[in-house]
Amino acid sequence: MKNEIKIFSPATVANVACGFDVLGFCLDSIGDEMVIRKTDKKGIHITKIEGFDLPFEASLNVAGVSALAMYEAANPDCGFEIEIYKNIKPGSGIGSSAASAVGSVFGMNELLGKPYNKTELTQFAIKGEALASKCEHADNLAPAIFGGFTLVKSVSPLEVLEIPVPENLYATIIHPQIEIKTSESRAILPKEVPLQDAITQWSNFGSLIHSLHTSDYDLIQKSLHDVIVEPYRSKLIPHYREVKESALQNGALGAGISGSGPSIFTLSKGLENAKNVKEAMEKVYSKTGITFEMYLTKINTEGIKIL
Amino acid sequence: MKNEIKIFSPATVANVACGFDVLGFCLDSIGDEMVIRKTDKKGIHITKIEGFDLPFEASLNVAGVSALAMYEAANPDCGFEIEIYKNIKPGSGIGSSAASAVGSVFGMNELLGKPYNKTELTQFAIKGEALASKCEHADNLAPAIFGGFTLVKSVSPLEVLEIPVPENLYATIIHPQIEIKTSESRAILPKEVPLQDAITQWSNFGSLIHSLHTSDYDLIQKSLHDVIVEPYRSKLIPHYREVKESALQNGALGAGISGSGPSIFTLSKGLENAKNVKEAMEKVYSKTGITFEMYLTKINTEGIKIL
Repeated sequence: MKNEIKIFSPATVANVACGFDVLGFCLDSIGDEMVIRKTDKKGIHITKIEGFDLPFEASLNVAGVSALAMYEAANPDCGFEIEIYKNIKPGSGIGSSAASAVGSVFGMNELLGKPYNKTELTQFAIKGEALASKCEHADNLAPAIFGGFTLVKSVSPLEVLEIPVPENLYATIIHPQIEIKTSESRAILPKEVPLQDAITQWSNFGSLIHSLHTSDYDLIQKSLHDVIVEPYRSKLIPHYREVKESALQNGALGAGISGSGPSIFTLSKGLENAKNVKEAMEKVYSKTGITFEMYLTKINTEGIKIL
Repeated sequence: MKNEIKIFSPATVANVACGFDVLGFCLDSIGDEMVIRKTDKKGIHITKIEGFDLPFEASLNVAGVSALAMYEAANPDCGFEIEIYKNIKPGSGIGSSAASAVGSVFGMNELLGKPYNKTELTQFAIKGEALASKCEHADNLAPAIFGGFTLVKSVSPLEVLEIPVPENLYATIIHPQIEIKTSESRAILPKEVPLQDAITQWSNFGSLIHSLHTSDYDLIQKSLHDVIVEPYRSKLIPHYREVKESALQNGALGAGISGSGPSIFTLSKGLENAKNVKEAMEKVYSKTGITFEMYLTKINTEGIKIL
């Protein structure tokens, strides 16, 4: 059995318009790299962090906390060193903390001979994610671990459903380099919503699940609407409406806030459309003076993997 | 081409727990029969009504109103006579008015050589349904016409999705012979609902759609919960909680209010379970002194048909 493993831990998009709080999907070319190493010295030790300034103390680090949760459960004869090469900016809205949280437990599980299944790994990762987001949720963790589209039916007990991915589906994402405070993006949501809007949302969500099963791109397009959360949270993202409109006008099937933002995701049928959408969104944001990054990837059906 | 046709127009269950206002399914052995006859005399003429006391005047009769909507659109050289043999009690909550509304247009369409598709037929039937329920909706019409499970994604424009039906799915229904006023069952619903409950509902609804696609009976069971409407409307149905509990304890996958009640539907895997559920519900209601009827049928994947 290997003593060291290098892994790619992917970025993810949570919420996906009508699937607020339950749906997510996995990205392909953007993610963190991590090295996990078995050591004689017991415990979890973070030995290297590159890319962003994060705590080395395991109990204060997202990857460390999930690692500790698994370490306590597995109680192995060894310890683990973790090196984190962080590419996903914390607070970007594309699952930065989730990538960290799943990376350590996925790597450790491989080195221990895979004692845990994907749902159990997600369970450990929830502990790490909770450090970052102050609540236990799995809508970024599940797609990072399972790949593709995942529906987190419930967190307690954890139940993750793997939804089929139409073959020709691409995501284009723009990440304006601004900070949205998680507390603010939560506080802005209403406690109550109109019943009629809720009905519209679950009609769209049921349709989206059906459309992913049937690879019905027209229906994906008709389903990717969020009448509950977007009206509130989009106010926190500069030029949101413009970016979304230009994406839709240039062939995107749909667009929405990625996680709690500030990133905006779009889905497109085929690479050509996705490229046009990227160009269109780039055009809008280039004029704003706000720094931004863009990503274009196929939906990653594999999820986290060994490099 | 035939000049006369006899049809079976099935009863249906709308809402289906978490699918409030959008999901429905079609029943097999309970429904109305209707005879539609081409005549030289122009116009729509209801010539016979058996079973229940309903108006003969076409513009005041649900079947007549939908027939008139189609008649005006088709503008044929002939007229039509309609005979209605009504088995589904009006106000039962299993799509009595929907069966009437679809029966006339389905029969006329057959006699005219099928100029209209199922969605167009549903569109005409909506006009009849609106006479009964004072609003345009299609959650009973669509399953009666398409068969199986249908998701009415939107009414305007009308978009009906056909959801796959697991092979071994049976419905048991109890219809307590009490009257619930539609106005009351509507007024009792809140205008606003907690966001957290709405999230639970669409999580369940998305899961239900996934479970129907994958014939995952365990997941059907876990998904058939209604946290939005049932807490309010179940109060209007005597012994609702008892009936539901006994159904679940005796093998039902789930139970809920059929349409706006008073009927209660349950879904079961396999005929044996469905029979046990029927017996259990019967036992509860036998003690109440309230007259009731029961139905046990496979999900009808065919929908309305020629006899």
